[in-house]
Amino acid sequence: MPGNTFGSLFTVTNFGESHGPAIGCIVDGCPPGLALSEADIQPDLDRRKPGTSRHVTQRQEPDTVEILSGVYEGKTTGTPIMLIIRNQDQRSKDYGNIVETFRPGHADYTYWQKYGIRDPRGGGRSSARLTAPTVAAAAIAKKWLLQQYGTTFKGCMSQLGEIPIAFESWAHVPENPFFAANTTQIADLEAYMDALRKDGDSCGAKIDVVASNVPVGLGEPLYDRLDADIAYAMMGINAVKAVEIGAGFESVVQKGSVHGDEITPDGFLTNNAGGILGGISTGQDITVTIAIKPTSSIRTPRQSIDKQGTPTTVETFGRHDPCVGIRATPIAEAMLALVLMDHALRHRAQCGDVKVDRLVKA
Amino acid sequence: MPGNTFGSLFTVTNFGESHGPAIGCIVDGCPPGLALSEADIQPDLDRRKPGTSRHVTQRQEPDTVEILSGVYEGKTTGTPIMLIIRNQDQRSKDYGNIVETFRPGHADYTYWQKYGIRDPRGGGRSSARLTAPTVAAAAIAKKWLLQQYGTTFKGCMSQLGEIPIAFESWAHVPENPFFAANTTQIADLEAYMDALRKDGDSCGAKIDVVASNVPVGLGEPLYDRLDADIAYAMMGINAVKAVEIGAGFESVVQKGSVHGDEITPDGFLTNNAGGILGGISTGQDITVTIAIKPTSSIRTPRQSIDKQGTPTTVETFGRHDPCVGIRATPIAEAMLALVLMDHALRHRAQCGDVKVDRLVKA
Amino acid sequence: MPGNTFGSLFTVTNFGESHGPAIGCIVDGCPPGLALSEADIQPDLDRRKPGTSRHVTQRQEPDTVEILSGVYEGKTTGTPIMLIIRNQDQRSKDYGNIVETFRPGHADYTYWQKYGIRDPRGGGRSSARLTAPTVAAAAIAKKWLLQQYGTTFKGCMSQLGEIPIAFESWAHVPENPFFAANTTQIADLEAYMDALRKDGDSCGAKIDVVASNVPVGLGEPLYDRLDADIAYAMMGINAVKAVEIGAGFESVVQKGSVHGDEITPDGFLTNNAGGILGGISTGQDITVTIAIKPTSSIRTPRQSIDKQGTPTTVETFGRHDPCVGIRATPIAEAMLALVLMDHALRHRAQCGDVKVDRLVKA
Amino acid sequence: MPGNTFGSLFTVTNFGESHGPAIGCIVDGCPPGLALSEADIQPDLDRRKPGTSRHVTQRQEPDTVEILSGVYEGKTTGTPIMLIIRNQDQRSKDYGNIVETFRPGHADYTYWQKYGIRDPRGGGRSSARLTAPTVAAAAIAKKWLLQQYGTTFKGCMSQLGEIPIAFESWAHVPENPFFAANTTQIADLEAYMDALRKDGDSCGAKIDVVASNVPVGLGEPLYDRLDADIAYAMMGINAVKAVEIGAGFESVVQKGSVHGDEITPDGFLTNNAGGILGGISTGQDITVTIAIKPTSSIRTPRQSIDKQGTPTTVETFGRHDPCVGIRATPIAEAMLALVLMDHALRHRAQCGDVKVDRLVKA
Repeated sequence: MPGNTFGSLFTVTNFGESHGPAIGCIVDGCPPGLALSEADIQPDLDRRKPGTSRHVTQRQEPDTVEILSGVYEGKTTGTPIMLIIRNQDQRSKDYGNIVETFRPGHADYTYWQKYGIRDPRGGGRSSARLTAPTVAAAAIAKKWLLQQYGTTFKGCMSQLGEIPIAFESWAHVPENPFFAANTTQIADLEAYMDALRKDGDSCGAKIDVVASNVPVGLGEPLYDRLDADIAYAMMGINAVKAVEIGAGFESVVQKGSVHGDEITPDGFLTNNAGGILGGISTGQDITVTIAIKPTSSIRTPRQSIDKQGTPTTVETFGRHDPCVGIRATPIAEAMLALVLMDHALRHRAQCGDVKVDRLVKA
Repeated sequence: MPGNTFGSLFTVTNFGESHGPAIGCIVDGCPPGLALSEADIQPDLDRRKPGTSRHVTQRQEPDTVEILSGVYEGKTTGTPIMLIIRNQDQRSKDYGNIVETFRPGHADYTYWQKYGIRDPRGGGRSSARLTAPTVAAAAIAKKWLLQQYGTTFKGCMSQLGEIPIAFESWAHVPENPFFAANTTQIADLEAYMDALRKDGDSCGAKIDVVASNVPVGLGEPLYDRLDADIAYAMMGINAVKAVEIGAGFESVVQKGSVHGDEITPDGFLTNNAGGILGGISTGQDITVTIAIKPTSSIRTPRQSIDKQGTPTTVETFGRHDPCVGIRATPIAEAMLALVLMDHALRHRAQCGDVKVDRLVKA
Repeated sequence: MPGNTFGSLFTVTNFGESHGPAIGCIVDGCPPGLALSEADIQPDLDRRKPGTSRHVTQRQEPDTVEILSGVYEGKTTGTPIMLIIRNQDQRSKDYGNIVETFRPGHADYTYWQKYGIRDPRGGGRSSARLTAPTVAAAAIAKKWLLQQYGTTFKGCMSQLGEIPIAFESWAHVPENPFFAANTTQIADLEAYMDALRKDGDSCGAKIDVVASNVPVGLGEPLYDRLDADIAYAMMGINAVKAVEIGAGFESVVQKGSVHGDEITPDGFLTNNAGGILGGISTGQDITVTIAIKPTSSIRTPRQSIDKQGTPTTVETFGRHDPCVGIRATPIAEAMLALVLMDHALRHRAQCGDVKVDRLVKA
Repeated sequence: MPGNTFGSLFTVTNFGESHGPAIGCIVDGCPPGLALSEADIQPDLDRRKPGTSRHVTQRQEPDTVEILSGVYEGKTTGTPIMLIIRNQDQRSKDYGNIVETFRPGHADYTYWQKYGIRDPRGGGRSSARLTAPTVAAAAIAKKWLLQQYGTTFKGCMSQLGEIPIAFESWAHVPENPFFAANTTQIADLEAYMDALRKDGDSCGAKIDVVASNVPVGLGEPLYDRLDADIAYAMMGINAVKAVEIGAGFESVVQKGSVHGDEITPDGFLTNNAGGILGGISTGQDITVTIAIKPTSSIRTPRQSIDKQGTPTTVETFGRHDPCVGIRATPIAEAMLALVLMDHALRHRAQCGDVKVDRLVKA
């Protein structure tokens, strides 16, 4: 398969460019009989959409989704669900200076090398805007997983540039523009971002995502382990450079007598595994952390070359997120949902319906 | 596809259990005309095999590979290459106590939940022994990539439990049992492992792997990005809990003006990207770091339950690696090679032959 | 993969229902740099569209295609090409009587059994209208194959109901509403169809398709043989019940001394193989014949049951093709083109670029 | 995927050459808990094996299968099942004269063109011997389908060269070397074959296969229809040149009022559909007919060229089936079983468990 389809049984085939007429995806493999309308999908798109605070790109896109197929009288029919989002606020001239040169740290260079041609308007296909169809598709997966197994997803930003963000409560996440599970540090984060924008620079972020009420037994060893597919999904998000599951890098310094999560009749006592053992879900929360690099489109001048190989300096104007990590939380949740959905169907195929009788404590 | 096939165009379909009669794989999609014999594969298996020092499992397996198909008069024919490794040193009675209980931190529990049946002998299918066929298959990929593009792979351990290992020189890697690029700390590492074994405990490790002379343009955005597939491959290795590419988690605290690798006519000035931008290879070295958790089979008693859910205590005897990270370096190199091989063929399919004219400096 | 994606490297993911707002597909894997606009696609859609003679359904659909992505400044970029065709002449009330009963010989019954829900408007997803996106996608494949290898496609109807149609010349195919390579029998065919409509009945047809200037070496034995994939593609067209390649059923009565196509330095002396040996193309014309069953939506009353299992009589009114075979020729050509395109890319992946130096005579 | 894997969820990855050390396959995706041993597989291999009458090749191969993985204490574990069959009666010198020339009608030419290299010993990878692993894998599918849904498979030869074989009773099939459902014509068939061998020539055959007690609802439209996948499977058998389902080519001359199978509360009144409507199983018998071409390896001299393109005459000696159709019945049954197995799992994935409450009469 070419690279624009996610999943093996619940598949999302994504199309579009940042400044084309529309973006969207075809979702195939959705079980029939699921009640579905645009209203089930729009809230997740609204959490991800641009222009909602001064800390993100000022491009104004309502990101309104339309369902063009696969639903009849309010229910999925088991046939492909086409989701389309029409682009509305393209200003391709903003990107004129990018056509002939390559932004350091940007896909400009590699698309050019790979295809010998690229759509430079807004980053074309390489734009993080293309995560919107993924988020829309995942809203369908989330609804099905919730109904079927009670599975839920949540996420938050745990670090913004140099500032670690203390976890206070999940309740705070929708109350600030950063998806921070925190109230006390929000002013600091705002100030940090304001200074960054003033400097014409950008920063990275760390995001945590959690799936709860996960069925036991999802994951297909040897290669298509649940953790392997989660790593694939997360590293596939624009700008992600690292993925941890459970204790992650902390596992390196843990002794076996500490790391291995002990089991009692009431459940596991800890969750260093992050809900996955041997590539298969344990039923505990699945916990994932990702690192997002700073945006490459910045005003600060940087050395580069043009298509002819001549040295040049690149300064990027136009509308960009100074921290793409700010809008990454709903995207990471979406990716996790798509992986679990696909593995739920894979499990049904080989082993019959999944178990929801979980042994959970930690 | 069920979960035991790796890759899309250069595929490895893996079979076997730790204590069954044989393990192996079918490699499909290998280009025809490659000179190939067992002698091309055995050295990589020898680097991974057990029993080579007191710090790894004492199971004695020569891990001798046989090619059963796909090669005629010393050359690949383009048809499937069957690789078989016969198990020789099974002692299934060693594992008798594992049959009814679940080791904390082990796949015992999840295989049981998923399939309702499991082969407990030596961990059955969940054993790290099943990485041997992967390593064998990757030796074929490595040979082809080297001939075709000059691509090479190397790796080393950069941390053992609490001990960070200083990088001194790649030349040291084969000179010690840890795959450490170091001579001065080897005695410390030996002492650390001796103490650990005495305690009946285990530890984690951190491994770095690097691919050099990588063609430009490998990777299939949107979803099947090169970094996404590397993350999948690495997280799919037994016991891996985290994957970083390039600057990894360090990207979070880097400003955009620092992280983005500047480009000059002579090459990139840095390599924070780890050789991948927008999911496509830049031609620079691909750099990956992984975290490996401590072995779950330890002598230290731990709380668990049996199949009936009754509380019990588990102590694992038998032969186990006290640090599975010690033998992980050749496995991580192999995984990286398989990903690049698959993407080289995918690139050829859509874009024709790949570019080897690289812009590399950093 | 769910069932709505065709191909492995040049993939077509199809969506839509007969009476939904739109139908279309995402084409992924197209090589970059191909000049492409709607004008390259529309002619093939026009050959297939309804309402062009009194012998086909009177539904009026311009079947105008729009490209929503994957093309920049008139050239393909290597990213997904989204093709959309908006439905315009839906009259869902025409189908009211079909909602509760099952037409004999129609997918009504099986969709209902499979999914527990179905979109009955115009046959929903099971309508032959869904071949339009396939035809559109194949126009891209045809253009690439023509440019790259000179490959061309043609087809004709060789039997209409009980009337075998003599082959006179390919030049006649566009001159009559039947895609017959014939002028002398057209009046008979018209009369046959007029009588059939008057009777409220329907008939089958036989279609021949040919690909010329096919590269040598396409096809992936063991299972993904070129002939196997052609059979899959052809039998997957609505209403097809049989597929022959080369001599087809005639092979049964041929002796080996007759069937095997002899080879000379100037080329093959015959083409009983239909251009494929051992699942791999020989470079000769690929010749395929398919049988198309009569339309199941007819006015003639027939016994059936309703959803509750009660006996009932079904008479189908509304707009239907009395012979779906009449519009099948461009669809069969399209399917053949998609198979060859996919195998051309598969061949490039494993073996490098294909050979166009063909040994052809017969 | 390269071409040596059959299926999407119940996969068979095939390896080996006619005269290599072994042939076999890895079966992945088998549900866990199925009682399985070699004794379940061997009978199907015995029906297909060579040397059982004077009318087939005299190569002596016991075709003894060994299970090397995936079964523990007599039950499948859900992990890959490796099946190996060691070749025993290779006489590669028999084929010396084939190395430099191409047999008319044989894959010699196309393998050479595709790969630039081929294993000429016994036809190498293109030999019909490679159907043995497929038959072995299908025995597992058959056992599961029988236990789960009561599904059964049978087949017979319905024509040998010019001789149509009257259907008398399924009971006769195992009583003669031709898999004919007939007793009265057996002497004629024997005489026909004796004359053919004396002449150094070969002939084709027609085979019918039937699956009964098929679950309702199998098949994934739009492209992966059940009939499309059956056509793929059947046309993928060595030497097959045509496939019909249900009424097949007869559909062309049937009126809609005749072809469409009427439905009553007691079941369908006819089965022109061959058990499939809209690409989805109806629950009726699935009926398939295939045409098999005459063997290309014959003693009769034929014109050909050698590798250098020089004209030559080819006469093939050695051991060959004068009618490969004679041993094709169990192979066709196996292919049908593999398709149904794969679609049963695909159906479970999307729609949950399949329905066995069938509406069958005809």
